[in-house]
Formats: sequence, C-alpha cells, structure tokens
Amino acid sequence: MDIPAVQTEREEITSEKMAQTNPLPVPMGPWKITVYDQENFQGRRMEFSASCANIMECGFDNIRSIKVECGAWIGYEHTSFCGQQFVLERGEYPRWDAWSGSNAYHIERLMSFRPICSALLLQNHKESKLIIFEKENFIGRQWEICDDYPSLQAMGWGNNEVGSMKVQCGSWVAYQYPGYRGYQYILECDHHGGEYKHWREWGSHAQTFQIQSMRRIQQ
Amino acid sequence: MDIPAVQTEREEITSEKMAQTNPLPVPMGPWKITVYDQENFQGRRMEFSASCANIMECGFDNIRSIKVECGAWIGYEHTSFCGQQFVLERGEYPRWDAWSGSNAYHIERLMSFRPICSALLLQNHKESKLIIFEKENFIGRQWEICDDYPSLQAMGWGNNEVGSMKVQCGSWVAYQYPGYRGYQYILECDHHGGEYKHWREWGSHAQTFQIQSMRRIQQ
Repeated sequence: MDIPAVQTEREEITSEKMAQTNPLPVPMGPWKITVYDQENFQGRRMEFSASCANIMECGFDNIRSIKVECGAWIGYEHTSFCGQQFVLERGEYPRWDAWSGSNAYHIERLMSFRPICSALLLQNHKESKLIIFEKENFIGRQWEICDDYPSLQAMGWGNNEVGSMKVQCGSWVAYQYPGYRGYQYILECDHHGGEYKHWREWGSHAQTFQIQSMRRIQQ
Repeated sequence: MDIPAVQTEREEITSEKMAQTNPLPVPMGPWKITVYDQENFQGRRMEFSASCANIMECGFDNIRSIKVECGAWIGYEHTSFCGQQFVLERGEYPRWDAWSGSNAYHIERLMSFRPICSALLLQNHKESKLIIFEKENFIGRQWEICDDYPSLQAMGWGNNEVGSMKVQCGSWVAYQYPGYRGYQYILECDHHGGEYKHWREWGSHAQTFQIQSMRRIQQ
C-alpha cells in the first residue's frame, strides 16, 4: 500500500462516526500563508510557502490581514525580520490587533515573516522543553518547563522577570504579561543554539526582563 | 501534626535544593486582587478578596492597573459584570492593554470584577473538560477538549466558528482569534450549568460564533 497510514485511518471513519470522535491531528503539509494589503482579507493578496524578508518588494505597502493555512509563522514589524514579533498559527487574522500583543505603540506594521521550522506537531508536542533561569547568563534559580503557563507566578515562579532561557526542544513564545499578552518573544531550539542569555537576545524590540507567561508553539 | 502536608514538604527543601528543583505549586490562598485608578500601579489603590460590582462605589472613576496576588479573576468593561470580559491570572497588569484582548473599540474601562471560583488548581488542572459543538443547541460535529488549543483549526477543527459549548469540569476561556487574542469569553462549569448553547450566552459583548483558540484557566 502506498497510501500513508493516517490517510487510510481517515477513510475508514464514516462521517457519522466522525461526528462522535475527536478529529485526527492535521498532518503537516507544505507551509502556506496568504497576506492581504487591506483589513478583512480585502485588497491585493499574495500566497507564500516560504519566508519573505520585505513585503514591499512584492508591491505591498503593509500587511493588514492574514490567513495562515499551514504551519506556524512569525510576523515581524520591520523588514528583514526585525522589530516586534507576532506568532501566527493556523487561522484567520482580519486586522492588526488580531495578532498584535501590545498597543503600547501603535505603528501597525507587519513587513516580513517566516515559518517557525522547529514548532512541533501536536503528536510530538509533549517533547517541548525549555529551562528558565532567574538571572542572565543561565545563573540563579532554574525551572524546567514542558507545558504552557498562562501565569508563571501562579505556578510558583518568584517574580515577574526571567533572566535567561535555554530551549532544549521545540519552539516557544514568552509574553510580557500574564495570559499571553503584551510583547511576544519567540524562542526556537534551532536559533542561537536555543540559548537566550539576556533580554537583548530575545528580539530587537525587547527592553526588559519582564516575562509573565509562556507557551509552546504548535503546528 | 496540624501543619498541612504541603507546608511540611516545603520546609524540608533547602534553598539550595530549591534552586535545582521546579517550584511546588502555590496552594490556593484567599482571593486577592489590588486595583489602581492610574496606570503603572499609581494613584488611589484598593485591595479586594471578593467580587466588586461597581468600582465607582469605592470612589474610583475607572481601573487603570491591576496586581493579582491570589486566584484567577474576571474583569468586566461595565458595572454589574457586563460587557467585555478579561481573564486576570496572577501577575502584574500595568495598563489596559495588558489584559484587553481587542482594541476593536477603545473604551478602556474596567468597572467590575469577580473571582473565577471554578478555575482548577494546577494539580487538578488535567481534569478540565469541555465539549465544543459545530452548531448552536449542542448539535452537529462535537469535540471533547481537555487541553489548551492556540489554534483549533491546526488541531483539526473544521472552521473558525464554534456553535455551542458544554463545560464539564473547570473553567475555560475562548478567544475570537488564534493565539489567545481578540474577544475573550469565560466559560465556567458552575455558571448556566456549564451550558452555553448560543453566542448570545457567551457574554453581553458576543456578536458572532467566531472562536479560534481556547484554553483552561488555572489558579
């Protein structure tokens, strides 16, 4: 049989049975994102299956709505993958505030984007692992994380800061505020060797050690 | 021994050992939230350990920053627990956009709040259970959820809408957009008998069936 196992399994499930059963995880297909230069999926549109360092080279002045059809992506405020970072998982984002975590300043730009290659599939998701450290340079109190934490403090972390982080498996997003709000910092096992030893390495938009929630990125 | 087991366990862990060990979950204490009438924890402040239906009765014109010290809470845009809902888990919220999920309209008010009594502690967290249905009134395709889903579509759900929901255990928050963004709808097993059969029952701010991510609320 050339048909992959997951396909066969799917065919055996009748639509009636499907209604009673949790859906199977969607297998990872090719990366796919569609960007629009107007809100609500209007205006000029373009599909991508790989990274884009400068949307202006495609004739866009900005990206104002997004549909992610496959994979997990990072959007960046500026060209060449700089500035604020925005996690983009599968689904529909009709306007800037659907992906932005902060309106501390309101530039509303998304000029480059790329796939998050180290994001794990659902079935491997439990292997995700990250260590957070109290101080920069991987010193002080440490805590191994394998799950999502909407409030690090509620789970026992001492304060509202994290000094440094090592990603051992998968990809993660850390947030400034509890409940996955505020600035987003995407952390990948295949970037910087997974080592983020100071807030200056979390992204060009980072300005403090403040991190109050974090979670795994799935695809 | 009158000392609770968890206390004893804590005392046995030296500070050195603690530095190498994941912290213990914080036992649920009395509810505690501190609200401020100015941003960045400035201005008039007041502590609460129970719900507040109208902050104006305490002499505040609005709440502009918050520290949650114990438990999980819901903040509401209007008095008497109406309007937009905001999950508030343990941590620090220096300004409105730290808890708001949407700037679709910018009223920036938080006038009432209450504890989420059915939010589970970390150690019971895995018991959380919710069923989502394709259509209103609990019909169509259904899916039992026991985990956090930053993208329902990535996990196999067919579209960007959920018709109705039944909370069987714990409390949950559903979001309009992927990645826990946009309007927040708090769903509790001890409200409406855990049954939310149409978007009109999700909250007075709900206007559509659109739900693209959901997660458990811990305390």
